[in-house]
Amino acid sequence: RINGARLWAALMELAQIGATAKGGVKRLALTDLDKQGRDLVVGWGRAAGMSVTIDQIGNVFMRRDGRNNALPPIMTGSHIDTQPTGGKFDGNYGVLAGLEVVRTLNDANIQTEAPIEVAFWTNEEGSRFVPVMMGSGVFCGAFSLETAYAARDTEGKSVGEELARIGYQGEQVPGQHPIGAYFETHIEQGPVLEDADKVIGVVPAVMGLSWYDCVVSGMEAHAGPTPMGLRKDALQVATRIMQEVVAIANRYPPYGRGTVGMVQVFPNSRNVIPGEVKFSIDLRNVNDALLNTMHEEMLAFVEQTRRDSGLAISVERVSYYPPCPFHPDCVGAVRRATAALGYSTMDVVSGAGHDAIYAARLAPAGMIFVPCKDGISHNEIEDAKSEHLEAGCNVLLHAMLERAGS
Amino acid sequence: RINGARLWAALMELAQIGATAKGGVKRLALTDLDKQGRDLVVGWGRAAGMSVTIDQIGNVFMRRDGRNNALPPIMTGSHIDTQPTGGKFDGNYGVLAGLEVVRTLNDANIQTEAPIEVAFWTNEEGSRFVPVMMGSGVFCGAFSLETAYAARDTEGKSVGEELARIGYQGEQVPGQHPIGAYFETHIEQGPVLEDADKVIGVVPAVMGLSWYDCVVSGMEAHAGPTPMGLRKDALQVATRIMQEVVAIANRYPPYGRGTVGMVQVFPNSRNVIPGEVKFSIDLRNVNDALLNTMHEEMLAFVEQTRRDSGLAISVERVSYYPPCPFHPDCVGAVRRATAALGYSTMDVVSGAGHDAIYAARLAPAGMIFVPCKDGISHNEIEDAKSEHLEAGCNVLLHAMLERAGS
Ligand SMILES: NC(=O)NCCC(=O)O
Ligand SMILES: NC(=O)NCCC(=O)O
Repeated sequence: RINGARLWAALMELAQIGATAKGGVKRLALTDLDKQGRDLVVGWGRAAGMSVTIDQIGNVFMRRDGRNNALPPIMTGSHIDTQPTGGKFDGNYGVLAGLEVVRTLNDANIQTEAPIEVAFWTNEEGSRFVPVMMGSGVFCGAFSLETAYAARDTEGKSVGEELARIGYQGEQVPGQHPIGAYFETHIEQGPVLEDADKVIGVVPAVMGLSWYDCVVSGMEAHAGPTPMGLRKDALQVATRIMQEVVAIANRYPPYGRGTVGMVQVFPNSRNVIPGEVKFSIDLRNVNDALLNTMHEEMLAFVEQTRRDSGLAISVERVSYYPPCPFHPDCVGAVRRATAALGYSTMDVVSGAGHDAIYAARLAPAGMIFVPCKDGISHNEIEDAKSEHLEAGCNVLLHAMLERAGS
Repeated sequence: RINGARLWAALMELAQIGATAKGGVKRLALTDLDKQGRDLVVGWGRAAGMSVTIDQIGNVFMRRDGRNNALPPIMTGSHIDTQPTGGKFDGNYGVLAGLEVVRTLNDANIQTEAPIEVAFWTNEEGSRFVPVMMGSGVFCGAFSLETAYAARDTEGKSVGEELARIGYQGEQVPGQHPIGAYFETHIEQGPVLEDADKVIGVVPAVMGLSWYDCVVSGMEAHAGPTPMGLRKDALQVATRIMQEVVAIANRYPPYGRGTVGMVQVFPNSRNVIPGEVKFSIDLRNVNDALLNTMHEEMLAFVEQTRRDSGLAISVERVSYYPPCPFHPDCVGAVRRATAALGYSTMDVVSGAGHDAIYAARLAPAGMIFVPCKDGISHNEIEDAKSEHLEAGCNVLLHAMLERAGS
């Protein structure tokens, strides 16, 4: 069993770096604060007897040798960068749970057959540099090192420059690092476990997602003198599509999701009929065929709305991640560990993307969710219970031991 | 008949002051540019033999004596301040049409029985200082001089300070200036005349309007992990009300108007379910009982939506102007002048507020509309045809002569 108090203390200490007034953390990728956070975690890793490798995109691998070091390591990890108004647990928990596993193995003098590694991936959040999940994405070859290096923040600083500046541009070629299996513990970032009063979420898969930008173009005109019949009100047409996005998701329970999160109205003046409305569409499903059906239904509705309204409507897909089913061996290992430890449990499909979806392209992977308060994350008030974090870490320990062999 | 070329030349010369790159005008109330515009128009008035009175809120009255100067003057006017991205005609046309009437009377050596006055009112647009129609509002006692003086722009400068600074804080107590009848020529600011291919709009009334701020409060949450059934999506609830605003207006043709022009979504992030949506509602009707019915239907729908959704919804009325029917004598004078001159014509209810609605509280009033290109105003591309402006000015001349007696 791991030491829950020690895990909690590590989380609270790391959360000091970039701590915000409202109890959250602002530690954006590749800033001085990220360097301080990285140094602290690497220091803890070395103190726990681990060796450290850094690759060219700044992913950090901390290794505890096994009996047979020719075997690929059983890896766990996540990220320590945060959202601008982020919390203490998102990402950090996955990394420090890995550290706690190693500290526990050290305390108990347990040697594993395969080596064990704790990784943290560069710029998972994507808040400072796009794309999101950058380190794991480069690692698995989803996009190139050059693409990642060229990404710039709003001040024009590039990933390449900032990595070198904080001293985390390593030598290893990304991806040239074997993985035997990958586990990631994470707060759920949703309300399902809390709602069902369960402690451990076994994650069979991560939903696929499609992101779109939609623009409805009408004609701006004065709200008073323009008769209703002569209007080309872009907002009235846009709201029909906004409602359909949710209606589509509701037609595909339980894993259909549809969200319009971002809206811009032009000129956005009280007595001017909107001439243009831009908005985002986020569609998700765990089943790729259903996600595609949702995609087709959305496009068909847009086409119908274009015909009905006579207004110009453009819709462009800006991101697509296919659903990612996790490997039965890893999902099984998590399920068996949870059962052995006697925690209440349920399957929870991850609605959010994680580094694990990229790791899963290279090795068997699985995830362990624990509840977070009110399902809230990406928020300074993000919160989780110490006993739940401890439980998730115990499951991680047992699942990793199963895969690594003891 | 007035001189259309001279009227056009005056409009183009005044439009030089604050001219924008896109062919519009930016001459905000009580700025240095407004002072330059005022000086130019006052200079033209004096050159045409008029005496000038300025009141304490900076309204300017330029007077041409009649045979019987004990009679209250027959007044025309409008405003010369503009929107930040305004056009050459809104307001300016009404003032310079008045000047052209006087120049024409001078050329023809016509003396009227009652005196004639050309007024321009301070800060009609309300872009720099609220409330809108400030000068005419203080003049008719809708709000106090102190209230107007205390209004500040975004830089903290007050109306009182700025009036004094540009030298247009006059001596006369606002309202202590008799008016026998008031006429205002204006571009329509809507598409009705152009759509019907008519030159002169006789304006029987101005619509009443109600403005509201509405806030829907839900719960912000991650767009991926939050199941559809556990969401409190503020945007989905807000869009229902946005659509009802238009549906209500459509139930009261031809003079019902309903517009949502301004929308703010929080936190406005692609993968976050909106936690709060603020938006404006603009309801108008020329019939106050129907405007009130629209108001009641909107509130009832909000109440129903509150019950159906379980979300908190607040709706607050922030402005109300009752409908303003114009005086039969003035409307009749415009109608007779138009018929005598043989222009194509129709009645056009004004959907937008004008200084004339405040003048109408003190004296018989009426308005004359001319078409503007595509119904567009409050825009640098605002445009109108010289022949239409000339026609409107001829109607003004004849209507004023009827009321002033020649
Ligand atoms: N974990 C997480 O918040 N990922 C961001 C991408 C997404 O919206 O799923
Ligand atoms: N004429 C004009 O644009 N007035 C502004 C107030 C309104 O929206 O009617």
